[in-house]
Amino acid sequence: MTSRFTELAVDCADPAKLARFWCEVLDYTVHDADDDLVTIGPRRAPSASPGDLSGPVPPVLTFARVPEGKRAKNRMHLDVSPSDRDQDQEVRRLLALGAEHVDVGQGETSWVVLADPEGNEFCVLAGRRP
Amino acid sequence: MTSRFTELAVDCADPAKLARFWCEVLDYTVHDADDDLVTIGPRRAPSASPGDLSGPVPPVLTFARVPEGKRAKNRMHLDVSPSDRDQDQEVRRLLALGAEHVDVGQGETSWVVLADPEGNEFCVLAGRRP
Repeated sequence: MTSRFTELAVDCADPAKLARFWCEVLDYTVHDADDDLVTIGPRRAPSASPGDLSGPVPPVLTFARVPEGKRAKNRMHLDVSPSDRDQDQEVRRLLALGAEHVDVGQGETSWVVLADPEGNEFCVLAGRRP
Repeated sequence: MTSRFTELAVDCADPAKLARFWCEVLDYTVHDADDDLVTIGPRRAPSASPGDLSGPVPPVLTFARVPEGKRAKNRMHLDVSPSDRDQDQEVRRLLALGAEHVDVGQGETSWVVLADPEGNEFCVLAGRRP
């Protein structure tokens, strides 16, 4: 008796550009695309795929073109965790992909606050090491 | 060479209240809580747990208390999929939990747009049937 979190929907000005950025960040691939809507997700089906009703799944990300621009700090943001390197190395990779450092008043934290190419804030958490 | 989407961070006025709502929506449980930050996630570890570096995982949701209120339509929102009932039944369940219908100019769509108890828009997609 439940719903599952299957999609994170992102309003944007340039779905293709933002989808390319997030595919690089998360090593996702484009699942579906037209001019106004691009869906990206994991390259390989997780053990619990969207067709599998047995449990939670990694949500796909959808990027939908909207006329309005970003007006304030997002109320909701992604936190990402480096999977195979330390935080500093991953932050350098993300900056090279087009991310930028942003100050949202976070002060001294264990995470690094960046923004994607459309200014959407996200955090790079301390990497989990094997 | 990638990051993983491990947390969706939600700014809010009442972390405990919003966490309770989303636990009911997604059948999640509280992983960690203090007055200003509540983390919820799946009840059972998915096959790829956050400690498993091999692939994408269902992100946990974190609710952090912030001083500012919601000022505009969220730039980013959750889409949820009924896992074991049809869309109409699930919408009725969510309304009973405290969700409300909202009009964001969606017009006629296959999904239903609701808002959580703090006005965060989310969509109930057409349910996937076994």
